[in-house]
Amino acid sequence: MTKGTERLEAFSDGVFGIALTLLVLEFQIPNPDASTSDAILWGELLALWPSLAAFCISFAVVLIMWINHHELIRLVRKVDYPLLYANGGVLLTVTFVPFPTKVLARHLGTHAASASAAFYCGTFFFISLTWSALLACIIWQRRNVKPEVTDATLARIRNTYRIAPIVYGLSVALSLWNAVAGLALCASLWLVWIRLCYGSKQAPP
Amino acid sequence: MTKGTERLEAFSDGVFGIALTLLVLEFQIPNPDASTSDAILWGELLALWPSLAAFCISFAVVLIMWINHHELIRLVRKVDYPLLYANGGVLLTVTFVPFPTKVLARHLGTHAASASAAFYCGTFFFISLTWSALLACIIWQRRNVKPEVTDATLARIRNTYRIAPIVYGLSVALSLWNAVAGLALCASLWLVWIRLCYGSKQAPP
Amino acid sequence: MTKGTERLEAFSDGVFGIALTLLVLEFQIPNPDASTSDAILWGELLALWPSLAAFCISFAVVLIMWINHHELIRLVRKVDYPLLYANGGVLLTVTFVPFPTKVLARHLGTHAASASAAFYCGTFFFISLTWSALLACIIWQRRNVKPEVTDATLARIRNTYRIAPIVYGLSVALSLWNAVAGLALCASLWLVWIRLCYGSKQAPP
Amino acid sequence: MTKGTERLEAFSDGVFGIALTLLVLEFQIPNPDASTSDAILWGELLALWPSLAAFCISFAVVLIMWINHHELIRLVRKVDYPLLYANGGVLLTVTFVPFPTKVLARHLGTHAASASAAFYCGTFFFISLTWSALLACIIWQRRNVKPEVTDATLARIRNTYRIAPIVYGLSVALSLWNAVAGLALCASLWLVWIRLCYGSKQAPP
Repeated sequence: MTKGTERLEAFSDGVFGIALTLLVLEFQIPNPDASTSDAILWGELLALWPSLAAFCISFAVVLIMWINHHELIRLVRKVDYPLLYANGGVLLTVTFVPFPTKVLARHLGTHAASASAAFYCGTFFFISLTWSALLACIIWQRRNVKPEVTDATLARIRNTYRIAPIVYGLSVALSLWNAVAGLALCASLWLVWIRLCYGSKQAPP
Repeated sequence: MTKGTERLEAFSDGVFGIALTLLVLEFQIPNPDASTSDAILWGELLALWPSLAAFCISFAVVLIMWINHHELIRLVRKVDYPLLYANGGVLLTVTFVPFPTKVLARHLGTHAASASAAFYCGTFFFISLTWSALLACIIWQRRNVKPEVTDATLARIRNTYRIAPIVYGLSVALSLWNAVAGLALCASLWLVWIRLCYGSKQAPP
Repeated sequence: MTKGTERLEAFSDGVFGIALTLLVLEFQIPNPDASTSDAILWGELLALWPSLAAFCISFAVVLIMWINHHELIRLVRKVDYPLLYANGGVLLTVTFVPFPTKVLARHLGTHAASASAAFYCGTFFFISLTWSALLACIIWQRRNVKPEVTDATLARIRNTYRIAPIVYGLSVALSLWNAVAGLALCASLWLVWIRLCYGSKQAPP
Repeated sequence: MTKGTERLEAFSDGVFGIALTLLVLEFQIPNPDASTSDAILWGELLALWPSLAAFCISFAVVLIMWINHHELIRLVRKVDYPLLYANGGVLLTVTFVPFPTKVLARHLGTHAASASAAFYCGTFFFISLTWSALLACIIWQRRNVKPEVTDATLARIRNTYRIAPIVYGLSVALSLWNAVAGLALCASLWLVWIRLCYGSKQAPP
């Protein structure tokens, strides 16, 4: 691992870690007043189920992205400026995740469920574009790729990254019709990312 | 210490550190207006005692978990994907701590004290489950354990981790009857964790 | 790279990373109520366009500053106390960026657009002063500069840093006349910073 | 520098960095409405002067504490559990700084100025106690001190740490009589900390 990627990884790890932690700020309940009882508090806490679901899903997503980020950076031989900026694009969209999460959490149980789900899936559509740009920066003409990485490995990764924007785009369209169906399609891709990690048949980062 | 655990530790340290720091965001007082006097501000500050108590307790808890996390990771010979995801589960629950802390702080002095204490203790019940999963990932069939760690050490740690979910479960039940009693039982376990650290009779991490 | 700069870089990276991530907290939409529909949510999300623009611009700015910070620290042979405090001044202004960003985002579409743009540009005027102080701490009488850095490189960097406060000052004045023109001038400087990086014709940090 | 202090320093650096960055969240202005004009926004921004003053002062304080923390940890030969917990106590009080800062910022210009200044100074009284505990953990019977550190150096540092709680205590009392006088006394101690750094006549950390 070159010196350059260490710096890049440390900075990216910090941003991933903070994005993970800020997700919890989304949980809000009313301040208690004289009439607040145990039963009322339980009701308020139970009413947070969409927040809890969004928190767990987004946490898992950022965690999976963190692991994939390391898989990707492990391919890198040297860091140049385009790579720094492409990596910044990925970090931009990663730090944005708490906002669509909050929107989804607050609207999933309302009449605006479709719009919030489409917005959530749409965010991941843009996220997948920034990842594609980062991948392109690394593997285009093998510019920044370590010599020992095979073309077969690169092809496998590239194909997965190609599918992602298409599936996320479909999940946006599906969300407009049915929020839960769109979210399910969006979530199904995370299984692909997890498999991509396991499929690499290499020691983890 | 292997390269793999360094990365894992740095990322986890970041998440622990941020979770610690976000706890302070819970402190809130009303904006001043024309009638705000010294006496009124002192009253507002004194009324924050449940926030202060929850802040100190939760800070201590996250600090103890941070120290225990290192104790645990020191056993690790190599990092694999199940371990990364199990560690992610621990981080998920650690970052969640500020929310039950806030709920407890705001409701401990109200008629909803029992529910808030049970929710707080229940959070630690789930936290202890994620730690058990992390421990299992490490020591099951000594998969990821360093060769020099003795079976006696593993047995001692495993027994402590087995007791935790049971005691936290009891503290939830106790909280429903009496908030303070439940919290006291919950807090008593932290002493066990501190002793676990000291009991390891090894140089600290 | 000396031991001293590693510590300084790690701390600064942390502050940059957190400043980047806090930018997302600026996104706020009303809580849903019984009348919230998909159309209303889309409207609320579209109304966030100034927030999104400010988020993307500020994110890019902090990212560019992060890269420039490393360019600058790469010149450093040893760290002394004036350098630590000058670096602290840069971090102070970097962490302040989320606030003018929020002000700009909320007021760009209102009658207070000029004031918000002038405040935003004015922030960068002060930021450029702290950068100039940091540069002076490093290169004054080549006090902390590595011996292999040529005087020509130092002159090139110093000239760019000299232009910055002047241009930012002009952008404040321009903002008072026309918000968008001022912001455009302010943004044009970022291109200079990017070019400064590329122009260094060295391996990136 | 031993392995143990590296871990401790990295974790502490993270907490210091986040505490620094969270200070900016204190800046709040009203949302714009139809009547918001440039003049109104300028007025709102100017009305933030106590926030800005508190932000700059607290930022400087946390920065000085960060530098002093490294001065202190540089004395350390090995890290043991009491030291980890004493360090945790310091971090607890450091992360608390944003709250008294916010209270001071909002009340300095009101009739509650004395109470807010006394609360601010009182926080630093407790902070100085946690630093004294950390110092005691390190130098008591030279338990964790590097052999090359002279007794004269330890005596010089101990004396400064002994004065701090007394002066901060006086500044609380003074604040109750006059807010600005108390804050001035509190701030004067920071000059002592800065001199302590410079007085060490050693290469910076």
